[in-house]
Amino acid sequence: MSGAANSWQAVRAEVLRRIRSREWAPGQPIPHEADLAQELGCARATVNRALREVAESGLIERRRRAGSRVALHPVRRATLDIPVIRMEIETRGEAYDFSLVSRAEEVPPPAIRARFKSAPEARLLHVVGLHMADGKPHALEDRWIDAQAVPGAGTTDFSQISPNEWLVLSVPFEGGDIAFSASVASPAEAEALGCPAGAPLFVTERATWRNEKTLTSVRLLFAPGYRLHTRL
Amino acid sequence: MSGAANSWQAVRAEVLRRIRSREWAPGQPIPHEADLAQELGCARATVNRALREVAESGLIERRRRAGSRVALHPVRRATLDIPVIRMEIETRGEAYDFSLVSRAEEVPPPAIRARFKSAPEARLLHVVGLHMADGKPHALEDRWIDAQAVPGAGTTDFSQISPNEWLVLSVPFEGGDIAFSASVASPAEAEALGCPAGAPLFVTERATWRNEKTLTSVRLLFAPGYRLHTRL
Repeated sequence: MSGAANSWQAVRAEVLRRIRSREWAPGQPIPHEADLAQELGCARATVNRALREVAESGLIERRRRAGSRVALHPVRRATLDIPVIRMEIETRGEAYDFSLVSRAEEVPPPAIRARFKSAPEARLLHVVGLHMADGKPHALEDRWIDAQAVPGAGTTDFSQISPNEWLVLSVPFEGGDIAFSASVASPAEAEALGCPAGAPLFVTERATWRNEKTLTSVRLLFAPGYRLHTRL
Repeated sequence: MSGAANSWQAVRAEVLRRIRSREWAPGQPIPHEADLAQELGCARATVNRALREVAESGLIERRRRAGSRVALHPVRRATLDIPVIRMEIETRGEAYDFSLVSRAEEVPPPAIRARFKSAPEARLLHVVGLHMADGKPHALEDRWIDAQAVPGAGTTDFSQISPNEWLVLSVPFEGGDIAFSASVASPAEAEALGCPAGAPLFVTERATWRNEKTLTSVRLLFAPGYRLHTRL
């Protein structure tokens, strides 16, 4: 490193060079900030700033006590804000409508039962509805709810508010997982979404739990052309 | 609220009830912590804990000086870790391989040119390659790079390392955007990915920039069956 040593960008460039060249190999601890500052001839705060930036990019893992090390599996990290569908549509200036297709207590298929760890004959609340934007189908919501575990769900008819919105407002956040994939529209899905059978559909599947108990599980099928955007 | 007022869960339940009933309407400031603590008969720290939880779920926006308010657009917030494709595959215990399909300096199509804000006749580096898992096609990478803005890209041949991995290790993170969608395999894409034409493909499109200048733009087409997982 040359005379520009006192800028944090120069320190970052040098750190990246060492990681890229494997001079600092994946999983290896990296030197203490004070040692690096001395070696590179800059302030410790400058090293700290540079390492923080590199850590945010996912190339370095910082651990409070154990120090920092080169990430074994560097990642790009994005934050994904998942809005209530009504608000996503209204934010675009479009008129929102929700149309309830069905609501019933049903014995779920095996895959859903496994997710809820429910008893073989136990019934769950099954709600299907269509989210519309400016009168056109936007997304088909197919949701299962453990009405025992979600107070109020059993007495809500979901004709005035979608389960999507009701649950965001009703269930305190605890944990969940989410998966994104692509699927083709079955004839029934195509009819609901007003698209040709076989059209490519963006799919999100979410499960929300509290105290390790699954509260709800949903499959959202978006009409063709939908894109989910976020910032890296 | 009853005698359970001194638990933060009870305070959270009461806050959620007020938001759900629109007693506290979207966009409206919520009372100061001290006032709420007095009203609800609990410690201020308890109110703070409850509000922090509700804010993490995206229903309340906390602003350092302006106080807290009910979110206009409540969201569920997820963190998305986007690994280097090689590492994603190796983490699953599968053998990774990358096969370079083409590498050329080309005048990009209008949509790519607009993204880079490049001059009409300016050439960009265009790299296409196939990521393989256990010998099977995993994802087709179609990438454009501004070699003027990314030192080293112009002299890297990408036969030994994919652009995906090279860029994560080479480009300091600054900003980017990402979009997820679904597409159907064109005949050429189907041949590259070893699937039938018309099969549904999960697509991610990313652009990475620094100082408002686009450095690289990529379209990743994943073989049928791919799912992107994360935690909420």
